[in-house]
Amino acid sequence: MAANTRLVEPITLKGFQDFLPEDLLPRKRLIRTIEAVFERYGFAPLDTPALEYLDVLLGTGGEGTNKELFRLESPEGEAIALRFDLTVPFSRLLAQYPDRVKPPFRRYAIGPVWRADKPGPGRFRQFVQCDIDVAGAATVAVDAEVIAVMGAVMDAAGVSEYCVLVNNRKLIDALLVSCGITEITRQKHVLRVVDKLAKVGLDNVRRELGEGRIDDSGDPIPGVGLSPEIIGKILAFIGLSAPSRRGIIAQCSENLPESPLVQAALAEMNELADALDALGVAEEHARFDPSLARGLDYYTGPVFEMILPSAPEFGSVMGGGRYDGLVERFVNRPTPCTGMSVGLDRLMAALNHLGLVDAEKTPVQALVVTMGNVPKAETLRLAAELRAAGICTEAFFASKKKMQMSNQLAHADHCGIPVAVIIGEDELANGVVSVKDLRAGKVQREGIQDHDAYREAGKAGQVTVARSDLVAAVRALLQ
Amino acid sequence: MAANTRLVEPITLKGFQDFLPEDLLPRKRLIRTIEAVFERYGFAPLDTPALEYLDVLLGTGGEGTNKELFRLESPEGEAIALRFDLTVPFSRLLAQYPDRVKPPFRRYAIGPVWRADKPGPGRFRQFVQCDIDVAGAATVAVDAEVIAVMGAVMDAAGVSEYCVLVNNRKLIDALLVSCGITEITRQKHVLRVVDKLAKVGLDNVRRELGEGRIDDSGDPIPGVGLSPEIIGKILAFIGLSAPSRRGIIAQCSENLPESPLVQAALAEMNELADALDALGVAEEHARFDPSLARGLDYYTGPVFEMILPSAPEFGSVMGGGRYDGLVERFVNRPTPCTGMSVGLDRLMAALNHLGLVDAEKTPVQALVVTMGNVPKAETLRLAAELRAAGICTEAFFASKKKMQMSNQLAHADHCGIPVAVIIGEDELANGVVSVKDLRAGKVQREGIQDHDAYREAGKAGQVTVARSDLVAAVRALLQ
Repeated sequence: MAANTRLVEPITLKGFQDFLPEDLLPRKRLIRTIEAVFERYGFAPLDTPALEYLDVLLGTGGEGTNKELFRLESPEGEAIALRFDLTVPFSRLLAQYPDRVKPPFRRYAIGPVWRADKPGPGRFRQFVQCDIDVAGAATVAVDAEVIAVMGAVMDAAGVSEYCVLVNNRKLIDALLVSCGITEITRQKHVLRVVDKLAKVGLDNVRRELGEGRIDDSGDPIPGVGLSPEIIGKILAFIGLSAPSRRGIIAQCSENLPESPLVQAALAEMNELADALDALGVAEEHARFDPSLARGLDYYTGPVFEMILPSAPEFGSVMGGGRYDGLVERFVNRPTPCTGMSVGLDRLMAALNHLGLVDAEKTPVQALVVTMGNVPKAETLRLAAELRAAGICTEAFFASKKKMQMSNQLAHADHCGIPVAVIIGEDELANGVVSVKDLRAGKVQREGIQDHDAYREAGKAGQVTVARSDLVAAVRALLQ
Repeated sequence: MAANTRLVEPITLKGFQDFLPEDLLPRKRLIRTIEAVFERYGFAPLDTPALEYLDVLLGTGGEGTNKELFRLESPEGEAIALRFDLTVPFSRLLAQYPDRVKPPFRRYAIGPVWRADKPGPGRFRQFVQCDIDVAGAATVAVDAEVIAVMGAVMDAAGVSEYCVLVNNRKLIDALLVSCGITEITRQKHVLRVVDKLAKVGLDNVRRELGEGRIDDSGDPIPGVGLSPEIIGKILAFIGLSAPSRRGIIAQCSENLPESPLVQAALAEMNELADALDALGVAEEHARFDPSLARGLDYYTGPVFEMILPSAPEFGSVMGGGRYDGLVERFVNRPTPCTGMSVGLDRLMAALNHLGLVDAEKTPVQALVVTMGNVPKAETLRLAAELRAAGICTEAFFASKKKMQMSNQLAHADHCGIPVAVIIGEDELANGVVSVKDLRAGKVQREGIQDHDAYREAGKAGQVTVARSDLVAAVRALLQ
C-alpha cells in the first residue's frame, strides 16, 4: 500500500498517552473500584458526548473558564469544543431533562476531558476524570457524603494515609467582609493570592496582598493594596490550625467578629462536622483547613481537596466543592449542587509511587503452543475447549520463522501469560497434552548458570496429562 | 451567576447522544460482556487518545478514508482530527512500539470514534466501537478465531439467531482476473458496484457493471463498461449459494477457471472452513457468501459481516476482515492483520428490539428516608451502616418542600430503587427502623381504586425491625 508513498511517522499527539495492556489493566481495575464505591454511595452513572457547543461550556456572560479548550467547528459551522470537565455537561443535563433528571439527583460520570494546556511531566491534554455530583440538596450533610466518598475511594484503593482538606467559601467571605473587603472582584483577587500560598510562600502572599511584588522573571505582580493590619488578620486566619474539626471551628469563632454572616458560616461548619462524625469519617481523614483556597472563586460553600501526606508531590488527587450557581447558566431555577472529581491519571501515578498497584500484564491465562506438523485445527480445538471452560486462552499463530518452541515460550513470557499448553506430534499420537507453569520454570531458572541445569529447571512445573484432563490440569496450575 | 446574562440553551450537539442511567446501565453491562468474551479469546486491552495527527489517520499518499472527520488544530498549529475508527490507531501503535508490542499481538479496544457524517435515525456522530485485532499472523486460522469471537459475543448477549457472512477478497480477485479485469481501479469499481447489491438490486448492479444508469434523481451513474458475458459470469458467481461452507467452496470451484490464483483462494477458504469446524462454529452461524463485498477495496483476505436474520433492519452489527497493508503506512515491515469491530450502538439497538436487554434503572438498592425532625446524622448513620455491608444506598436529602414522605417514596419509585429504609421520630425513640419493599407495594396497589385499600396495600412488604437487624432485613428484601 505504502510502496509509492512517503511513510507517515507513527507518533502520539503531543501531550497525549497510549495505554498498553500493562498500563491499562491496572487503570481499568482502579476504575471498577471507583465505580463500585460510587454506586455504594447511591450514585448512578451518566454519560455525555465529548463535544459540546462552546456556549454550553463557556456561558454567554463571559464567566467562562480559565481552561484552554480544543475548539473546532461542527459540520454545520457552529462553534464547538471538546469538554474540559464533566461538571458543565452535568449542569446542562439537569437543565435539559427536567422530567427525567429530577433533583435530588446523584450521578457519577467517568470519562476523558481535554485541555489545550502546555503539557508537562504528569500533565496531559487528555485525561480521565471520575466525578460524582449531587443536585438538589442544599444541606451540607450531602457535602459530608461527598467527602466520605473521597475517603472510601482511598480505602478501596488500599491507601491508609490520606486527608481531605476542607474549607468553606462562606467562612472566607465572612472574613473578607469583616475586613471591609466587599467588592467581588477584590474578594476574588484576595482568594487567588491566598490560593498561591503553597506555591509562592507566606512572604510573597503578604506582598501580593499589599503593594505587589516583582516575580523571578522581573515582571511586576500588582498587589491587592490591603493595609498591613488587614493583611495580618487574613494571614492569622489562614494560619489557624487545631487537632480536630471542632477545634478549628472554635478557633475560627475566636478569630472572627460576631456577625450574622460569621454565625451562619460557623453553623454550617458545625453541621458538616456532625455529618462527618455520623458517617464515621476519622479526624485524620478530613481536616478543616482555613488556608485552603482552591477554586474558591468558583465554589459557593464547602470546598474539598484530597492530599496524600506520604506522596505530597502528587498534589491534589481529588477535589471538589459546592457550586450552587452553575445550572443557572441554562435555566432560571436554583439548583444547589455539590460534587468532586477524581483525577484518575494523577491518582494512578500516586498509587504506583506508593507501591499499591498490582502489576498485571495480560488477562490471558493460557497459551496453546504448537510444534512441528501438528494441524492448526488441533491448536484451535484445544483453545476452544479451554475457552468453553472460561479460561482466557490465546492460540499461538505467527509468521513461520517465529513458530519455534522457544519463540512461542518467549512470547508467553513477554506477555506474562502464566500457563502454556503444549501439543506436539508425540502428544497428538498418544492422546495427551503437556501443561507447563511458566512462572514456576522462571523462578527455578533464576540464577542458574549451568546450561543443562538451566534446561532441567525449565521443565519444572511441566506435566503431561490425558487430553480429557486438559481443563482440570490448567485450572490446577492457575490456582 | 446568570442574573445579568442571557441564558444558554441546554442542548446536546446535533448527532450526539446523552446517556441517562437507564440507558447507560445496560450499555455498561453489554460492554463488560463483550470485554469478557474478548479476554476469553486471548485479547488484551489497549487504549489510544481520541485525537491523532491527520497524517496518521489519512496517510500521505491520499489513500486516506472516505469517512468525514472532525478536524481541528493542535495548540502547536498542527493538523489533527478525532479518530474515525480504532484500527488506524492500532496500526500506528504496532509501528511505534516495536519492542513493547511484538507480533503476534492480540488487542482489544473499546471506545468512542467520531465521524462528521450526516446524522440520521440510529446514525450518530460519536459512537462506540468494540474492536479486536490480531497482528503478525497470516494464517486464516486467526480469521476463523475472529469469526468465532463474533459468534461468542452474540451467544453471550443472548442472541441465538445470528450469522456471520464470510467472503474472501482473493476469491473475488481470482474471479476478476479470470474475467480479464486486472487493472486495480477497475477492480475496485466492480467491487463498489457489487457492494450495492442489497441497496439497489440485481438489475441496477447489472446496468452499473455495463453501460451505467440514470439514478432516481436523474443523475447519470457511469458504468464499468463490461460485456454482457462477463457481467453474467460475475452475477452468476455472486449468486452462488449452498447449505454448507464446503458446498459453497465446491460451487466456487466449479464456477471459476483453474488457475494458481483460484487454487490459492480456494485453498484458503478450505483452511478457513477447517478452522471454523475446529472452533465449533456451526454452519448456520458462519456462512460463506460470494456476494458479500463490504469493504473489499480495503481488505486483502477474508471479510466478515454479522447479520441478524430476526432483525435485518439493523444491518451489519459487526464487521471486519483481513487488512495486511495498513501498518505499512508507517513502517516498511509487512504486518499481516485481521480483526473486527462491534458497533455497540447498533448492537444495543438490535438487542433492545429483540427484547434481550434487561431494564435496569439504577444500581442503588436502598433509599434511607427520613421523616419529621429526625436529625440528619441519623439518616447518615443508617446509610453508612448499609454501605459498610456492601448495599448501594442513597440518603434522601432535598429542598425542604420535597422532604415529605410521599416525595421521598416517589423519588425511589422514579429512580427504581427497590427498598426504602424509613426512620421517623417513633422509630428513633423505640430503637427500630421500618424497611419497605417498594416493588411489593407497587404490585399490590396496581388496579386498586379505593383510597383506604390503596393505602393499606401500600404498606405491603413493610416490616419494622430492631436497629441492629437493619442490614439483615434489607438483604432479605433484596433477595
